[in-house]
Amino acid sequence: MDVRAHIQAHRDEFVATLSQWLAIPSISADPARHGDVRRSAEWLAEHLRKTGFPTVEIWETPGLPAVFAEWPAADPDAPAVVVYGHHDVQPVDPLDAWDTDPFTPTVRGDQLIGRGASDDKGQILFHTLGLRANLAVSGADAPPVTIKLLVEGEEESGSPHFADLLTRHRDRLACDVVVISDTTMWGADTPSMCVGMRGLTDCQIDVYGPRTDLHSGSFGGAAPNPARALAALLAGLHDADGRVAIPGFYDEVVEASPAERASIAALPFDEAAWLANAASDAAVGEAGYSILERVWLRPTAEINGMWSGYTGEGGKTIVPRSAHAKLSFRLVPDQEPALIQERVRRYVHDHLPPGVRAEVRFHGPGVRPCASDLDSAAVRAAREAMGRAFGTEVHYTREGGSGPEADLADILGAPLVFVAVGLNSDRIHAPNEKVEIPLLLKGAETVAYLWDSYATALRG
Amino acid sequence: MDVRAHIQAHRDEFVATLSQWLAIPSISADPARHGDVRRSAEWLAEHLRKTGFPTVEIWETPGLPAVFAEWPAADPDAPAVVVYGHHDVQPVDPLDAWDTDPFTPTVRGDQLIGRGASDDKGQILFHTLGLRANLAVSGADAPPVTIKLLVEGEEESGSPHFADLLTRHRDRLACDVVVISDTTMWGADTPSMCVGMRGLTDCQIDVYGPRTDLHSGSFGGAAPNPARALAALLAGLHDADGRVAIPGFYDEVVEASPAERASIAALPFDEAAWLANAASDAAVGEAGYSILERVWLRPTAEINGMWSGYTGEGGKTIVPRSAHAKLSFRLVPDQEPALIQERVRRYVHDHLPPGVRAEVRFHGPGVRPCASDLDSAAVRAAREAMGRAFGTEVHYTREGGSGPEADLADILGAPLVFVAVGLNSDRIHAPNEKVEIPLLLKGAETVAYLWDSYATALRG
Ligand SMILES: [Zn+2]
Ligand SMILES: [Zn+2]
Repeated sequence: MDVRAHIQAHRDEFVATLSQWLAIPSISADPARHGDVRRSAEWLAEHLRKTGFPTVEIWETPGLPAVFAEWPAADPDAPAVVVYGHHDVQPVDPLDAWDTDPFTPTVRGDQLIGRGASDDKGQILFHTLGLRANLAVSGADAPPVTIKLLVEGEEESGSPHFADLLTRHRDRLACDVVVISDTTMWGADTPSMCVGMRGLTDCQIDVYGPRTDLHSGSFGGAAPNPARALAALLAGLHDADGRVAIPGFYDEVVEASPAERASIAALPFDEAAWLANAASDAAVGEAGYSILERVWLRPTAEINGMWSGYTGEGGKTIVPRSAHAKLSFRLVPDQEPALIQERVRRYVHDHLPPGVRAEVRFHGPGVRPCASDLDSAAVRAAREAMGRAFGTEVHYTREGGSGPEADLADILGAPLVFVAVGLNSDRIHAPNEKVEIPLLLKGAETVAYLWDSYATALRG
Repeated sequence: MDVRAHIQAHRDEFVATLSQWLAIPSISADPARHGDVRRSAEWLAEHLRKTGFPTVEIWETPGLPAVFAEWPAADPDAPAVVVYGHHDVQPVDPLDAWDTDPFTPTVRGDQLIGRGASDDKGQILFHTLGLRANLAVSGADAPPVTIKLLVEGEEESGSPHFADLLTRHRDRLACDVVVISDTTMWGADTPSMCVGMRGLTDCQIDVYGPRTDLHSGSFGGAAPNPARALAALLAGLHDADGRVAIPGFYDEVVEASPAERASIAALPFDEAAWLANAASDAAVGEAGYSILERVWLRPTAEINGMWSGYTGEGGKTIVPRSAHAKLSFRLVPDQEPALIQERVRRYVHDHLPPGVRAEVRFHGPGVRPCASDLDSAAVRAAREAMGRAFGTEVHYTREGGSGPEADLADILGAPLVFVAVGLNSDRIHAPNEKVEIPLLLKGAETVAYLWDSYATALRG
């Protein structure tokens, strides 16, 4: 029996098992559901024991628990893989927008509907099916690589304790590669591999002028207006080509390779559909890059909010005493949040007109960007395994967003590889979340092949 | 007996009479005080009858009443003067910041303390003293010019019915000049005449981008950001020289005469005191003009408020769906609010990047600027009369603010002359409002001389 046949033979069992797990409402953002998050961790631990993992542990945090499981390869020199996912799910409001109960998993044709089906329980569970398929075909009683599964319980709440957890267990999580299964592919017929995520740092800028609001009749024309100073700062963030104009902003940016750009250009991109999705009348951005490249490959400076002076009904003729903005910067390799923060501060302080002063406060250290090395054995093997499962070429994509994944690479000191089979149409974080069952099976097939490849490809 | 001796002889009686009036809390902004505003009108009407005005009327409005009094000259061909002031006063909060009860007028040396002492009851009442002095010296039983006193009851509430009142009574208010007694002089030892006020028009700009807030990770870099578009619009309002960069903005601006600029330059201006008053660390503004010129002679574009997107604690990484600003424009002769509104609209619509749209909503038709003709007989005579009363040269000043005065000039078709003796230190609109009694007496003396001058200077 081959991998694909084994997986097909276990399809119904797989769907039934996943449905059991999906029935547990493990909403980490809802304190009333924290008992369910714990129940979800225990369910998963039990399932991993049944799968055959000799070591299964619940890892406590000051918040909600993660699950750790380890199945060592027979060969002590075999490479080790950390697989990352999360067992908590998003809230389900608005409940009345769901066609079925979010925690009564429902099969409709090839789809399994329920909260967490795609994000992320389905994508964790394909790993246990894939591992069993690998073992069934090899006949071995241990995987060809050491598998360390780490399944977080607070991802949908911002992973507040995740970096600490990684640091605390760094030794036990030692590995040659981290496989992330929590993203999406371009489409069901267009399998793709995410090869990077943008980083993030965000701040508040407070600009102060007169020590009190002034009457614009008595003082207007000669008193410094902090809203005007802030508008100039914000307008100066970009040049006419849509590039970020903060000196040094691009200094550490590594341009994406021609191969990656070609792969992105080959995606069947539909601009009209993108605009509909963005609820926008036009796409904008940095000259010289496509829409996808702007969102995936390029760093940004974005105004998230601003306020100053009078904002009520009608008018109030004041020179306001202060003006404020929230900015966020999406970063790409190898931009360092700390360096960008320093340059933003300098930009602000170098562009203040007389009579105003400013404070720039960043919210925490920021999130570093991450990207896979497309020429690495880890990425090439994953792309091949996925291509074998899907029977077609695998494109490269990236994520424009930022997540705890960068912490995995930084703290564990291992490269990231994204192996995931969600779709953008899965309605994650929204009512009627679903997953395509055939894609979960392809995910299982991919990792069944991948562990064999890694056993040789990643060997020191 | 001469004018000055007559006035000095009646000083105590004048202070006692004014104190009676100041005891009436005629706060037009406080509905609970509207009975007092009416009582104030009735008190004034009675006082004007006692002064000798043959015609005294309460003029009703849909809001609070004005007082009209007319004393015709004996000569039917004599010029007619409208004297404008207001009998309503500002609220008194914060009450505990007052050293004395605001409606228990208190004499301290040369000062009379109480709400309305300077703004504007004291400045109306000097007219009755001045008129009696004129008559006492001439021995006539009618003034040398026809005096039409118009004392509004809603000035501190924005004069919502004043233009209507003027239009309704336009015939009875026919005149050769309008004398406004509701402003300030440069200083007790530096008498000055206001010769202009800036106009005003203000608007809200609403800029719309995506039809919903977007996730800045998924869309940032390619989705249009309306806050960025607004910042660019606002930053573009001024050029590097501090001039308003809206095309056509200065087209109708009449430069102040060299004589007026020289008079302003001769004022004993103390920049450190101005900065302290403006609670500011630096003065800014249009290149080529002094601080006073920027506030008095030059038009402005001011950001009064703005808001967009997320303004709470911490960060929220969105591309906001909309961004908003409140702007006001101070105008100088001969800028027309309607033309400026049109040019602001065009500026906004000509500077929108792709993917955003904007709405510009002006709050009403705006207020036209006004200025006196310094070479007119009306201004020259007033300056001479004031100079005679004060025994020193009278400077020109302007007001940077905007008021109903422009309506008087427009609707009555007569030039404005400002004759007033308030001081910037009078704490009008603030706790512990006071007036300098000797200056009120100088005001009385000024108009006693002025009516004689006008009898010949303004004669057809
Ligand atoms: Zn997820
Ligand atoms: Zn006033």
